[in-house]
Amino acid sequence: MSKSVFVGELTWKEYEARVAQGNCVMMLPVGALEQHGHHMCMNVDVLLPTAVCQRVAERIGALVLPGLQYGYKSQQKSGGGNHFPGTTSLDGATLTGTVQDIIRELARHGARKLVLMNGHYENSMFIVEGIDLGLRELRYAGIHDFRVVVLSYWDFINDPAVIAQLYPDGFLGWDIEHGGVFETSLMLALYPQLVDMDKVVDHPPAKFPPYDVFPVIAERTPACGTLSSAKDASREKGELILQVCTEGIAAAIQEAFSPQS
Amino acid sequence: MSKSVFVGELTWKEYEARVAQGNCVMMLPVGALEQHGHHMCMNVDVLLPTAVCQRVAERIGALVLPGLQYGYKSQQKSGGGNHFPGTTSLDGATLTGTVQDIIRELARHGARKLVLMNGHYENSMFIVEGIDLGLRELRYAGIHDFRVVVLSYWDFINDPAVIAQLYPDGFLGWDIEHGGVFETSLMLALYPQLVDMDKVVDHPPAKFPPYDVFPVIAERTPACGTLSSAKDASREKGELILQVCTEGIAAAIQEAFSPQS
Amino acid sequence: MSKSVFVGELTWKEYEARVAQGNCVMMLPVGALEQHGHHMCMNVDVLLPTAVCQRVAERIGALVLPGLQYGYKSQQKSGGGNHFPGTTSLDGATLTGTVQDIIRELARHGARKLVLMNGHYENSMFIVEGIDLGLRELRYAGIHDFRVVVLSYWDFINDPAVIAQLYPDGFLGWDIEHGGVFETSLMLALYPQLVDMDKVVDHPPAKFPPYDVFPVIAERTPACGTLSSAKDASREKGELILQVCTEGIAAAIQEAFSPQS
Amino acid sequence: MSKSVFVGELTWKEYEARVAQGNCVMMLPVGALEQHGHHMCMNVDVLLPTAVCQRVAERIGALVLPGLQYGYKSQQKSGGGNHFPGTTSLDGATLTGTVQDIIRELARHGARKLVLMNGHYENSMFIVEGIDLGLRELRYAGIHDFRVVVLSYWDFINDPAVIAQLYPDGFLGWDIEHGGVFETSLMLALYPQLVDMDKVVDHPPAKFPPYDVFPVIAERTPACGTLSSAKDASREKGELILQVCTEGIAAAIQEAFSPQS
Amino acid sequence: MSKSVFVGELTWKEYEARVAQGNCVMMLPVGALEQHGHHMCMNVDVLLPTAVCQRVAERIGALVLPGLQYGYKSQQKSGGGNHFPGTTSLDGATLTGTVQDIIRELARHGARKLVLMNGHYENSMFIVEGIDLGLRELRYAGIHDFRVVVLSYWDFINDPAVIAQLYPDGFLGWDIEHGGVFETSLMLALYPQLVDMDKVVDHPPAKFPPYDVFPVIAERTPACGTLSSAKDASREKGELILQVCTEGIAAAIQEAFSPQS
Amino acid sequence: MSKSVFVGELTWKEYEARVAQGNCVMMLPVGALEQHGHHMCMNVDVLLPTAVCQRVAERIGALVLPGLQYGYKSQQKSGGGNHFPGTTSLDGATLTGTVQDIIRELARHGARKLVLMNGHYENSMFIVEGIDLGLRELRYAGIHDFRVVVLSYWDFINDPAVIAQLYPDGFLGWDIEHGGVFETSLMLALYPQLVDMDKVVDHPPAKFPPYDVFPVIAERTPACGTLSSAKDASREKGELILQVCTEGIAAAIQEAFSPQS
Repeated sequence: MSKSVFVGELTWKEYEARVAQGNCVMMLPVGALEQHGHHMCMNVDVLLPTAVCQRVAERIGALVLPGLQYGYKSQQKSGGGNHFPGTTSLDGATLTGTVQDIIRELARHGARKLVLMNGHYENSMFIVEGIDLGLRELRYAGIHDFRVVVLSYWDFINDPAVIAQLYPDGFLGWDIEHGGVFETSLMLALYPQLVDMDKVVDHPPAKFPPYDVFPVIAERTPACGTLSSAKDASREKGELILQVCTEGIAAAIQEAFSPQS
Repeated sequence: MSKSVFVGELTWKEYEARVAQGNCVMMLPVGALEQHGHHMCMNVDVLLPTAVCQRVAERIGALVLPGLQYGYKSQQKSGGGNHFPGTTSLDGATLTGTVQDIIRELARHGARKLVLMNGHYENSMFIVEGIDLGLRELRYAGIHDFRVVVLSYWDFINDPAVIAQLYPDGFLGWDIEHGGVFETSLMLALYPQLVDMDKVVDHPPAKFPPYDVFPVIAERTPACGTLSSAKDASREKGELILQVCTEGIAAAIQEAFSPQS
Repeated sequence: MSKSVFVGELTWKEYEARVAQGNCVMMLPVGALEQHGHHMCMNVDVLLPTAVCQRVAERIGALVLPGLQYGYKSQQKSGGGNHFPGTTSLDGATLTGTVQDIIRELARHGARKLVLMNGHYENSMFIVEGIDLGLRELRYAGIHDFRVVVLSYWDFINDPAVIAQLYPDGFLGWDIEHGGVFETSLMLALYPQLVDMDKVVDHPPAKFPPYDVFPVIAERTPACGTLSSAKDASREKGELILQVCTEGIAAAIQEAFSPQS
Repeated sequence: MSKSVFVGELTWKEYEARVAQGNCVMMLPVGALEQHGHHMCMNVDVLLPTAVCQRVAERIGALVLPGLQYGYKSQQKSGGGNHFPGTTSLDGATLTGTVQDIIRELARHGARKLVLMNGHYENSMFIVEGIDLGLRELRYAGIHDFRVVVLSYWDFINDPAVIAQLYPDGFLGWDIEHGGVFETSLMLALYPQLVDMDKVVDHPPAKFPPYDVFPVIAERTPACGTLSSAKDASREKGELILQVCTEGIAAAIQEAFSPQS
Repeated sequence: MSKSVFVGELTWKEYEARVAQGNCVMMLPVGALEQHGHHMCMNVDVLLPTAVCQRVAERIGALVLPGLQYGYKSQQKSGGGNHFPGTTSLDGATLTGTVQDIIRELARHGARKLVLMNGHYENSMFIVEGIDLGLRELRYAGIHDFRVVVLSYWDFINDPAVIAQLYPDGFLGWDIEHGGVFETSLMLALYPQLVDMDKVVDHPPAKFPPYDVFPVIAERTPACGTLSSAKDASREKGELILQVCTEGIAAAIQEAFSPQS
Repeated sequence: MSKSVFVGELTWKEYEARVAQGNCVMMLPVGALEQHGHHMCMNVDVLLPTAVCQRVAERIGALVLPGLQYGYKSQQKSGGGNHFPGTTSLDGATLTGTVQDIIRELARHGARKLVLMNGHYENSMFIVEGIDLGLRELRYAGIHDFRVVVLSYWDFINDPAVIAQLYPDGFLGWDIEHGGVFETSLMLALYPQLVDMDKVVDHPPAKFPPYDVFPVIAERTPACGTLSSAKDASREKGELILQVCTEGIAAAIQEAFSPQS
């Protein structure tokens, strides 16, 4: 029981022993419930950062908090738009408040190091606001040494050699990777039973004008919901991504919380 | 892939096929991250209502949404108090906002029947407020046929014969069941690897005066965090509870959403 | 003029003399405007805790703040539901904010001891949240010695002999006492002119399934609005309740604010 | 019992009979808990508008809701400032939310005519915001015929002959009437036991520069808290004010809710 | 470049050199976008306080922050009402939040002296609330020496001789000066190209009953939107006003921030 | 007077004539007050989108609303971070509320077409949330035909030939253009008096790790505040940018609001 990296699987005494001194790195996956095309389940954005957190935590001795299951509203250019059935999103204030509340509580426990691992692009700025409001409150409470690292795991795929392996025909940008090769490969490596490659729709990469329209013009999103085709996804690519992310993020966290940072 | 009752494991097309007509019952487990004594993990209040939801959903053809992982602040008389390390709680407005947001989104998908299954006593009134604000919004949007059922699964253990089986020495009330025989038995039936019966602290039932004090007087809670001893918990009791709850709740939901209700 | 226990009837100089040192217990009745059947007026939940506060304050030298006249939304199983004409309720955030604001102001005056006396079941958790947010603010302001006691006066009727006197045919629980023997007896003792025993509707105790439905199914509440019949109410019972509550609460407050607590 | 103009003293059936058709004028006194000098109690701003409401309601067949007991923060130039002990004020959002909530509920009851009678100058704009937000909500609910009248009762003393009777030495403006001749005379007419004319401090009218400073410079307020001396107050003046206000407001309300307005 | 009194026209190094020590007076114009009759543009309430701020800042060595372009909802008796096309107003909470945010940021920069110059009557109380909430936050952050002066520039026209020059036929009160002689004369002195005296509608001063009605009864406002006629406005009057305001406000600010205040 | 494209410079009658039919495109510049290095003033993010709006509006017959002067908190990787003196930012909720309020008011005026032109990267998601909440409200009010276009003007520089002209040595990404060649060139073309090229600090482009840290590690931002050097900025480049943006945005708006979109 006590070997788990997941906070939810610890007793409070085990948690206290690990956390109260402030040195343990706490990791919070921040996800979404969002359509990911015809071929993949809707909790991808929770499963993937949780899996990365688990591997990083095992490597560096961190703990993983229960992930946030709902995220900010899907945007057309990064997630297809919030008009799809199944996509179930929060108002910005709700997500921001959740992050703020968790920071307040972790600080009460004695924690001083938090990593927010984002799995859903649209969450980013509302997470940032939650951190800002949370740290503001901690300052009022006289706590000045709580440090937060926030990252999106895909940003650690930045070695051109790796990108070339993943995208031998050229990389078109993270923005249209929604439900594409990147996420699908990771799911094939981690949860193949939640992917059905036969249902991948092979469509050209989504193209959008340099502006956004609200209410969304649904026709601008490929009808299947993905922004690029997942047909070239593979378990091997997923394992490569997982390895590169785990190593990169583990190193980054240690750097970010080292005394000289 | 499509056999799952968990919304997160469906594609949006599978979800749409099930939900868009409004007849499918949607179930949302509402939990907490809270200490449950020395012998049990901290995500009990998420695991248990999720497990009950799963069994009910399989029986009545419902779907289960990703559970809320964090709940309202632990109160001394029902959860030991919010001063324990590990207990990680939300402000009331955050929980209320989350429920309201999810109702808004489900209604957009076409759903009209929602069950909120609460696994953490302290959540109750903030869930109620989220429902009230959510339904108010739906009325503004012209939606008048969205019905919500809210329940705490333990309220379905009300047959004196069952209670006598669970508590042969007498039942002392749900309020002090925090981390006691009831929850521990269920965990033994469902997740025995997350329980360590050797660490159960055998203490007399907690007694409290008929008022509450804030800030909490920590000494009033048994030091281990449970409000009654789990020493008489057993897998068999857990299976009984699970069976009674599943049957009772399945029947209640069908009654609550029947046209004559 | 200066003999009053009611803050509103003092001058600010009299108030300052009593409060600024922090030892005076401040009492805040928290009520509601809610239907109480055909036989009783709608401000019962303000009048009763105010009357109890007055008696306790006279006994222990406390002061009584102006009571909150509006409370949280009536729930079907404890107040009949919020669909009745006349029942006039606040959103949870409004009630919570009111409690938080009053705590902030009392602390500014120098007060350090506050009792919130609740007269309307549904208020409880929103009062708790107001206290939590209020004390959080005080900590930011460097005030750590403000203590709040919160209670519902009926919880002090727990002596089986007293209960037997009040309910010779058996007690069915506080939840269905809405507009029943308990409140009506108190009103007969205190404000008989606001009760008309001839209009009491004699109906069997309300029965509800172990779940709630929203929007409320109005037919599940007895049509008159009470949850049990008040026909056995009497002035004598009311005087007994008043005496037991006053003594019990006075003792509890002194205990709760004693240095050893 | 049913003769009362006070909503709190009616049963819900009596209320329903009066209100559900929408023609009954509902009146809400909006007060404060605020210092009023050495000679007068602190709930003046609740007592006075409630008394005026009662008299107007008796005359025109209106009903009076339970008054708001706490108001917006006292300002130096109109109430002496919010730094006095005893003055217990709400944040603007709390007052606004309370007004909005009450409007929503009255509309649900069928009411369509509301008068907000303000007794505390500083409340004015937060009442206006509550009305605006409340009516906005009603529009979303499809209710377009709810009309609100808002007034401060002193604005009905505008006949120069009356002013000359009240202030034979000249009138210096409502702003410095805080705790002065006007309010004290009314209290003498209505609640003489809550006034002690021997404690009136005779000081020259407060003078302020044409700007405000925050945090307030306490020395700019007369030390006793009133902004002009109440020494010339009398019961006769109070009765005159009461008569003029009652007549003027009764006429104004009838005009405001007449079909041709 | 560095000679400007406008913060927006400085580099951050220039700003830091002026502000970080806390002695520099910061001025924030608070305006509105609101109809001002047929003869005048809609940003009068921004242009005028900004112009006064500029002149005062040049005289006393202060800096002027970018003005708030939108204000609180126009009220019928002071601005004609919020029903006019073009009038574009904020909810109270939005204006309050903006003021609070700016105070928090200025304090972070080291500033300790702020003047809020209001150009739109309806803003006043929401500015006051923003100041109160802002200073409350600063206290939590341990900052106790931040002082705010708030003023409406027209309040500095209080010399009877000046008023007689501006209104030789008698002054009727600031409340009906909306779009009248006062504002129009200032605009003629400062921005004559934004005034068209040929389009002034000559109507008698607006008269209102001593109460307000919501939704507003549009017919009670003169159809052109002004509350008194601007026909007697002149550039000379505007220059006089500008001179008197500049001198009076400059003196007041120096007094308000002097050590003895 | 009536020739202006700026709403603030119109009378309400002129505005009504243009706007009430719903066809006129309304443009709202959304800026910030933020450090832009040693060589440039702090209101760049207001001036530039306002200038682009003006040119586009002249071309397509649109109107320009008063720009928002304050924006969301500067982020280290796109604006250097919010720790600089002078940078004066809003909480997310304040910016979101401002956008929501303006949408509500424009809809009341009859407008149905709004363009939000963002000049500060960090605003983006809070603008999106304001639009979402604003359109939600309009749906409650029965308004379904209000369309919003949101854009950042720099996204219209996407022609490789133009980029090659602006960055002959290679383009490094919009993220580090804060205070660099792009914005400085535009300022040289539009407001050369607010730029001092002699104070440009020539430093290598900022490099950041693929994660963010809060509180910000100030040393990671170049000390002068810009993220890349502006030394290659020129008036000619600015004029080119202005021309390309104006043309591109004018065409985009016409496309976005055409009936077939």
